[in-house]
Amino acid sequence: MAVFVQKFGGTSVANLERMELVAQRVEERLKEGNEVVVVSSAMAGETDSLIELAKKIEPFPPERELDVLLSTGEQKAIALLSMVLRRRGIKAISLCGWQVPIITDSVFTKAKIKKIGIQKIKNLLSKGYVPVVAGFQGVTEDWQITTLGRGGSDTTAVALASALNAICEIFTDVEGVFTADPRIVKNAKKIEKISYEEMLELSSLGAKVMQIRSVEFGAKYNVKIHVRSTFSKEEGTWIVPEEEIVEKVVVRGITLDRNESRITVVRVPDRPGIAAKIFKALGDAHIVVDMIVQNVSYEGYTDMSFTVSRNEAKKAEEIVRAVAKEIGAKEVIRDDSVAKVSIVGLGMRSSYGTAGKMFEVLAKNNINIMAISTSEIRISCLIEEKYSELALRELHSAFIENGEIEVL
Amino acid sequence: MAVFVQKFGGTSVANLERMELVAQRVEERLKEGNEVVVVSSAMAGETDSLIELAKKIEPFPPERELDVLLSTGEQKAIALLSMVLRRRGIKAISLCGWQVPIITDSVFTKAKIKKIGIQKIKNLLSKGYVPVVAGFQGVTEDWQITTLGRGGSDTTAVALASALNAICEIFTDVEGVFTADPRIVKNAKKIEKISYEEMLELSSLGAKVMQIRSVEFGAKYNVKIHVRSTFSKEEGTWIVPEEEIVEKVVVRGITLDRNESRITVVRVPDRPGIAAKIFKALGDAHIVVDMIVQNVSYEGYTDMSFTVSRNEAKKAEEIVRAVAKEIGAKEVIRDDSVAKVSIVGLGMRSSYGTAGKMFEVLAKNNINIMAISTSEIRISCLIEEKYSELALRELHSAFIENGEIEVL
Repeated sequence: MAVFVQKFGGTSVANLERMELVAQRVEERLKEGNEVVVVSSAMAGETDSLIELAKKIEPFPPERELDVLLSTGEQKAIALLSMVLRRRGIKAISLCGWQVPIITDSVFTKAKIKKIGIQKIKNLLSKGYVPVVAGFQGVTEDWQITTLGRGGSDTTAVALASALNAICEIFTDVEGVFTADPRIVKNAKKIEKISYEEMLELSSLGAKVMQIRSVEFGAKYNVKIHVRSTFSKEEGTWIVPEEEIVEKVVVRGITLDRNESRITVVRVPDRPGIAAKIFKALGDAHIVVDMIVQNVSYEGYTDMSFTVSRNEAKKAEEIVRAVAKEIGAKEVIRDDSVAKVSIVGLGMRSSYGTAGKMFEVLAKNNINIMAISTSEIRISCLIEEKYSELALRELHSAFIENGEIEVL
Repeated sequence: MAVFVQKFGGTSVANLERMELVAQRVEERLKEGNEVVVVSSAMAGETDSLIELAKKIEPFPPERELDVLLSTGEQKAIALLSMVLRRRGIKAISLCGWQVPIITDSVFTKAKIKKIGIQKIKNLLSKGYVPVVAGFQGVTEDWQITTLGRGGSDTTAVALASALNAICEIFTDVEGVFTADPRIVKNAKKIEKISYEEMLELSSLGAKVMQIRSVEFGAKYNVKIHVRSTFSKEEGTWIVPEEEIVEKVVVRGITLDRNESRITVVRVPDRPGIAAKIFKALGDAHIVVDMIVQNVSYEGYTDMSFTVSRNEAKKAEEIVRAVAKEIGAKEVIRDDSVAKVSIVGLGMRSSYGTAGKMFEVLAKNNINIMAISTSEIRISCLIEEKYSELALRELHSAFIENGEIEVL
């Protein structure tokens, strides 16, 4: 007997018919004699339509109220899902974030979990209940509703699994984590096992399977995570510690992120403290900056480019414009038609020539590289968006389909 | 300077355009130098569509989960309304029932308020905020979400007004309380002042302007209530203590209630304790019984009829069937095509012949009376539903349009 935290995404609870499939997955685990905690996202489309409604009032709705609004999505889903489970004779009981409670900091719309009061859930489990917990939401210490950012339900699930020493099943509408987006690369294949670190890089890079923070959480507390499909009983992808992976490859996966924008500050006086000014202002507004490129200085001036999430690009642009004026930069240019392709793999640590090979594949296809960033196990290139699918396919072919042979 | 609790119904917050009108009403009170607490219902149609969704899962969804589901309606409304108010520069801040907190008992779907923690709202008011409180919802002492029953937002508003010693404005889509439903009786007129007691009877009888419990609450704590339209600046109807009413009439208003069903238990053994058995079973299921009629006993048997709210009729029928079997009654018949017409007025206490005149009006129109019930200030007749509008018009004509002259 084990404890399972089963997390179901928006497409898995999109309607009452789908919820029946969810109930089957829960029932199976219970029949095996396990205890189950369910975590649910909002029904597919719900969060988006709530955001749309709020934006009709104003483009940047007050974030405290946005969280109050958005958290209704998961609340609705857990109530309905509990009803569906109850009808099957499963003793389901819904819990909102504040009822668990899942305590977070007070950064509205992207709060971080500070602690989880696990006693109520443990009591319920011991009495044979199946707690159905609202993902994505939490509560501050002074009882304000917060949300954990896009994909936050994954974090709710992994955090709960960690607190309960449970296995975390992330149910989604795909069969697991793939070597590349199968909608773009038809030869993409399911990955059986992936390390936390690799998964972290893939998630950071736009593979939408899991929220980054949830993978971090999993890595930190060694939570066993199984990403799988709600609609099949097939094994999916296990996210595990590095030492558990036997099959060594250089590149585990290739991603494409079309949700970034590039902002360039033109003709910045090249003085100490200037970059700090720009990035501190962005940090104060809780905007995450990704790739940063600074040209060599010329006549005491330089150009500085960086990328931010596209939905924050306008806000970032406004902030940078204000700073630019202050520091005497010439102008600020925003470019939304960029994309980032990345290759990720633990094997890159001990393998040579991977970067060179990546640049060569892009060059061969006449794709210009606008910025490069790397980590120990990743190389990312910023390119023009129009070449992005081509780049993904060519890189997949070079590194995954014919990869091992060429590089090792 | 005074404190106003302004409650807005579902049609007043039906969409963002309507919410702008709500914001105007709030702004006006603030500009006069008052403090304002807003109470909002769910957007029109929202609660119904949530109930419909739940009923697709099963006809009688588990009530605890139904409350979790339904409470999202008000939560959505307060978040959006706060955004609309904020955009006008009003420091609005939304509060769910559990955040206030509004503590209730744990009778899900029709909980009663036990106490209100008013300190948070007082603090917010003192800092210049406009708290926007979710109507209709509360929380039990062990942190479960409850709802207060249909129209429960009125009770939230009156209870808050009482706790804050405030004036309670009930904004709705009609201009006040009318002598009869103006959609049916075209000569119906707006009542300027009505006593709590009369309003209580009218509300109990299906005049949907205010929830009964809210009027009871108002009467108990002498809360000044002003029922008025969101869409106009005209005075509406003031609900006040009896002694403040100058204009004396016999009949203040006439109502029609088409939301009852009649259940008849046929051939019940006429022994002590039989009625108690039936009504205790209904009471245990929290079903409110309205009119009760028992025929004279014949050969040791009697027939017993009573009415219940139509949406609980099926449940009541099931319960009574079980009891009927146990006590040896012959059968149970449910009739959904009944209606109750009632006349209400403080003046009936000191006036003779009102009942007789009512029966005469019905008889003159060939309308059979199936049951009668009375209070000190009310007479109700159960009739066939098909005659209900005719009855309403004829009674209005006799008692209101030509009333005072004939009876006094």
